[in-house]
Amino acid sequence: MPLLSIDVLEGRSDEELRLLLDTIHTVIVEAFEVPEHDRYQILNQHKKNEMIIEDTGLGFGRTDKVVIIRMTSKKRTQEQKQIFYKLLAERFEQILGIQSNDIMVSIVENSDADWSFGFGRAQFLTGEL
Amino acid sequence: MPLLSIDVLEGRSDEELRLLLDTIHTVIVEAFEVPEHDRYQILNQHKKNEMIIEDTGLGFGRTDKVVIIRMTSKKRTQEQKQIFYKLLAERFEQILGIQSNDIMVSIVENSDADWSFGFGRAQFLTGEL
Amino acid sequence: MPLLSIDVLEGRSDEELRLLLDTIHTVIVEAFEVPEHDRYQILNQHKKNEMIIEDTGLGFGRTDKVVIIRMTSKKRTQEQKQIFYKLLAERFEQILGIQSNDIMVSIVENSDADWSFGFGRAQFLTGEL
Repeated sequence: MPLLSIDVLEGRSDEELRLLLDTIHTVIVEAFEVPEHDRYQILNQHKKNEMIIEDTGLGFGRTDKVVIIRMTSKKRTQEQKQIFYKLLAERFEQILGIQSNDIMVSIVENSDADWSFGFGRAQFLTGEL
Repeated sequence: MPLLSIDVLEGRSDEELRLLLDTIHTVIVEAFEVPEHDRYQILNQHKKNEMIIEDTGLGFGRTDKVVIIRMTSKKRTQEQKQIFYKLLAERFEQILGIQSNDIMVSIVENSDADWSFGFGRAQFLTGEL
Repeated sequence: MPLLSIDVLEGRSDEELRLLLDTIHTVIVEAFEVPEHDRYQILNQHKKNEMIIEDTGLGFGRTDKVVIIRMTSKKRTQEQKQIFYKLLAERFEQILGIQSNDIMVSIVENSDADWSFGFGRAQFLTGEL
């Protein structure tokens, strides 16, 4: 159920994009212990002047590989979120060759009534999920 | 005031897109009892590899007609949300020929101070709304 | 850290877009008293039929210059938000020639654990920020 909106710059091949989305999903499954098919990803590709992503003065740069992950999810613990960030950084480097200065994540939480996966029902309320 | 971000795959005609947006809006007006001109819709059209929308293991498939509705709104009751999901499914089938397995909704709530509709003011705080 | 998603219609030049983003950022820095490099902006350009932005019946129109600003941020006071809306309206008119009927803002708040700016860490939790 986490719903992910992923923003990147144009220029990756279809294969690279697929590997990016697959890698993010394996981390979601592992960090939040959700089912394999709990996958909801929307990718947005941007021209270079459409993304300005700096560092809050932390003292590092970003490259054209920068990936912004915006996640909407029901409540997750602080611990789960920290595992998520850590795994993302590890896998992005190992699998995608993206360094951890190029990852930014922002999470927004909502409640059981805020999700419908289809069929006109709120599956977290009906007990289906 | 609900602000809607609607994600679909490319390939619909302008007429189909308009009917989609109109249908969503009539359901918003009915389910949340908002004024007719309380309409704030942003549509995002995607290439096929930019949306991966599965089923959390609930046991159904999605088609290329899939529509993701992300809504930001002030507080709404659980009941209103459930009416919203139900009406969406009914109208999508009746009016758009979109089956209810192709609808996903995610809602995020915020507060009165979080909205400005123009003129540099927070209209829910000033009493204008 | 506020993360901004900015939606506009296609048709502005690169220079106009840059000035728009710069103007929004100076208002962010001033209203929320964040560091100069606390800049995270994603711009989305839309075809005309992809944005339907009305007025909740408040009695004014929008033009093709309309700008929707969606901000995700940690908690901000009501006062800060109101300053933000006010400054936006002033600067948009002065610097961009955009009237205040063409600005809409929606804010969503989250918490310290909900942000990672890179390096696999939640910088608001580690004390780095």
